[in-house]
Amino acid sequence: MNTKEIPYKIYLDEQEMPKQWYNLRADMNNKPAPLLNPSTLKPMTAEELSQVFCEELVKQELDNDTPYIDIPEPILKFYKMYRPAPLVRAYCLEEKLQTPAKIYYKFEGNNTSGSHKLNSAIAQAYYAKEQGLKGVTTETGAGQWGTALSMACAYFGLDCQVYMVKCSYEQKPFRREVMRTYGAAVTPSPSMETEIGRKILAEHPGTSGSLGCAISEAVEMAAKQDGYRYVLGSVLNQVLLHQTIIGLETKAALDKYGVKADMIIGCAGGGSNLGGLISPFMGEKLRGERDYQIIAVEPASCPSLTRGKFAYDYCDTGMVTPLQKMYTLGSNFIPSANHAGGLRYHGMSSILSQLYHDGLMEARSVEQTAVFAAATEFARVEGILPAPESAHAIYVAMEEAKKCKETGEEKTIVFGLTGTGYFDMFAYEKFNNGTMTDYIPTDEDLKQGFDGIPRFPGNEF
Amino acid sequence: MNTKEIPYKIYLDEQEMPKQWYNLRADMNNKPAPLLNPSTLKPMTAEELSQVFCEELVKQELDNDTPYIDIPEPILKFYKMYRPAPLVRAYCLEEKLQTPAKIYYKFEGNNTSGSHKLNSAIAQAYYAKEQGLKGVTTETGAGQWGTALSMACAYFGLDCQVYMVKCSYEQKPFRREVMRTYGAAVTPSPSMETEIGRKILAEHPGTSGSLGCAISEAVEMAAKQDGYRYVLGSVLNQVLLHQTIIGLETKAALDKYGVKADMIIGCAGGGSNLGGLISPFMGEKLRGERDYQIIAVEPASCPSLTRGKFAYDYCDTGMVTPLQKMYTLGSNFIPSANHAGGLRYHGMSSILSQLYHDGLMEARSVEQTAVFAAATEFARVEGILPAPESAHAIYVAMEEAKKCKETGEEKTIVFGLTGTGYFDMFAYEKFNNGTMTDYIPTDEDLKQGFDGIPRFPGNEF
Repeated sequence: MNTKEIPYKIYLDEQEMPKQWYNLRADMNNKPAPLLNPSTLKPMTAEELSQVFCEELVKQELDNDTPYIDIPEPILKFYKMYRPAPLVRAYCLEEKLQTPAKIYYKFEGNNTSGSHKLNSAIAQAYYAKEQGLKGVTTETGAGQWGTALSMACAYFGLDCQVYMVKCSYEQKPFRREVMRTYGAAVTPSPSMETEIGRKILAEHPGTSGSLGCAISEAVEMAAKQDGYRYVLGSVLNQVLLHQTIIGLETKAALDKYGVKADMIIGCAGGGSNLGGLISPFMGEKLRGERDYQIIAVEPASCPSLTRGKFAYDYCDTGMVTPLQKMYTLGSNFIPSANHAGGLRYHGMSSILSQLYHDGLMEARSVEQTAVFAAATEFARVEGILPAPESAHAIYVAMEEAKKCKETGEEKTIVFGLTGTGYFDMFAYEKFNNGTMTDYIPTDEDLKQGFDGIPRFPGNEF
Repeated sequence: MNTKEIPYKIYLDEQEMPKQWYNLRADMNNKPAPLLNPSTLKPMTAEELSQVFCEELVKQELDNDTPYIDIPEPILKFYKMYRPAPLVRAYCLEEKLQTPAKIYYKFEGNNTSGSHKLNSAIAQAYYAKEQGLKGVTTETGAGQWGTALSMACAYFGLDCQVYMVKCSYEQKPFRREVMRTYGAAVTPSPSMETEIGRKILAEHPGTSGSLGCAISEAVEMAAKQDGYRYVLGSVLNQVLLHQTIIGLETKAALDKYGVKADMIIGCAGGGSNLGGLISPFMGEKLRGERDYQIIAVEPASCPSLTRGKFAYDYCDTGMVTPLQKMYTLGSNFIPSANHAGGLRYHGMSSILSQLYHDGLMEARSVEQTAVFAAATEFARVEGILPAPESAHAIYVAMEEAKKCKETGEEKTIVFGLTGTGYFDMFAYEKFNNGTMTDYIPTDEDLKQGFDGIPRFPGNEF
């Protein structure tokens, strides 16, 4: 098909939307390592996990074999309210960059949560409702996950308690108000409401918090209340599973127009967006059907893949979660108040960590001011004001497109535009005023985090 | 076609998108009255108008005869970046309300300006660029128009100077930052930068401003600078013309599925969204092809249609603009700091005023807290957090759907969801905290405004 016929935005028809999630683990030769019980160092059983998570979600967490999992009808119905997300051909950006590359982005920002997070939130809320729970607790970094979960809980009539990383809470008061509008209770983390919050505040007075702290608090509160479970917006296998809707739609849209991607780029915090976006492409790669260059982009201020250790570590700062094998900066690593709140996480999805470890994908780290410059350039030509997280992927996509200009290669670049930056104007204001700074941790800074990673036989790094 | 087959969201294909705007005036028996020169009380000539507005836009302003006007290719190209806007079937809202009514809404919020305003902004920026201008000046109320114009100017490389109504400037600091990200200069109005601003501040110290004030300042600044013209986001015939893209897409989407609307509902401030949405339907009504119930919804705090006078009046507070025949509360009426900034305008589009005067449409005024309650209910079932302006239409659509439940009528209700409320969280916070109040001007309040309407033979009211 002639490239000229490709519209600016490819929308799948409702009947073309995926009806199943794709479980990439089924196609992985090296499966992600199991979660370990930190007391026994044995793999967590379904029973143990069910004390924290919903039962159906535990099944999904542990299922390394079923390649396709049906999306329940009520979730499909909710998906239809805000999906399919458009796959956009960035004609204007290509023109601006004068590149022979063909650039596409999957835009997940056309919903009130402002990001892809709603894809998993609605699934997790559904299973909680099905199990007869009263409510759920969670953490949120940039606020997208908390907003998404608030929306999902409002839809199914569940109580929603959100622990919001303090620096985001302060920088984004309006995010909090969106969550409240959807009926959620929002608490800045670390807080005095939990044991772990009080402990962290005692040790690090004035801390701006981190996803790791907020997770500890949310897990503690779920355990304390009857009829509550904890839900998480990233990192876990179940979350990546739900997020495969992104990649499946992307692939269906490309296939519809006979387009073959050469390169898939996504930002990586805990890995939910990247994992979801790349899954069907990585599946083809794993099955030897087709090769793709796959690039994870992370902030230089929180470089878990590019500078972390591949080891078992806690998912949270308070060390109340199971141990997960992943690229980690150490669960006690508290990143600087980098504005890409959603990328301020010390670890990385086990699935992505394993794939990266096996050389199936690359990782790059980029600095904040360069990212905001790319975000601003992108906004001016493509119209969409991107979330700082998403702008990490934009930056690398633009760099790759510029390389194509030099080499003359007509590569097809696909990147994930995970969301909008409407609640990140505090950060944009800093950039606009020229007061934004970059931060790269020194090896000494990182060493402190690594020292906190638990040591036991089989966990050498 | 069976109703069951209608998807949640109807997207036109790119080739189905309108290529022409529709000029409703060509089908009106009673044309909107011409703009008058306030000095001579004679109709404004193209030459006179060209001192303020771009030439091509002046032609559009004065053209009462050409039914269809081609959309220039560069504008069509820009439209493709964020349009077509979806026509959404509100299945979840229908279910929640248990109504036999079929509810559809045209959602214009899927772009960074957050509203329909971009439809005219890009057109006006294009014509300014074509004329070789350096830049444009404008006012903005809620901030959507200013954001839209900033985006359009960034795209075409024009300078953009925005006078933002002070109460919005203060309530929405992040809106300002979005405009700055797109390269615009933003000044709170009334300001000390203009003669009229200084005059208004002297007369009303501490005023929270109004669209009328901001218009005066922007017009003054356009006149003062070489190579600048003034552009306006609503009220004018040209703006309604550009906004017909909303109604044309809506009608094409309904026609595609064989759906006949019974009722069209839109919020009305200056009239740009309502005029654009209803135009093709009103055209059918005027030509006697089909009847529709058409409802304008305005805030009770600024009730130009329901309580205003149909008379010639200034479009601005400073009385620097031509006189326009319209429903008006008086150009010196300064509305309360109602949060629906975009609806805080003393007058109404001439076209809509004439249609209303001729009994071709209805108007209703609604109070703020009821509107926010409807907005919150809508957000929780349909996912989208609406702009307060849009929520006026939601409220009436929901009321009408509830009436259908009582009567058992299966009416098809179409309303305009002009935008998102992401920058209105200050107002939502007030509502969430239970501190939002209603304000309805007394007859005495209104009398003061009416006293300011100029009196001359032929302008009796």
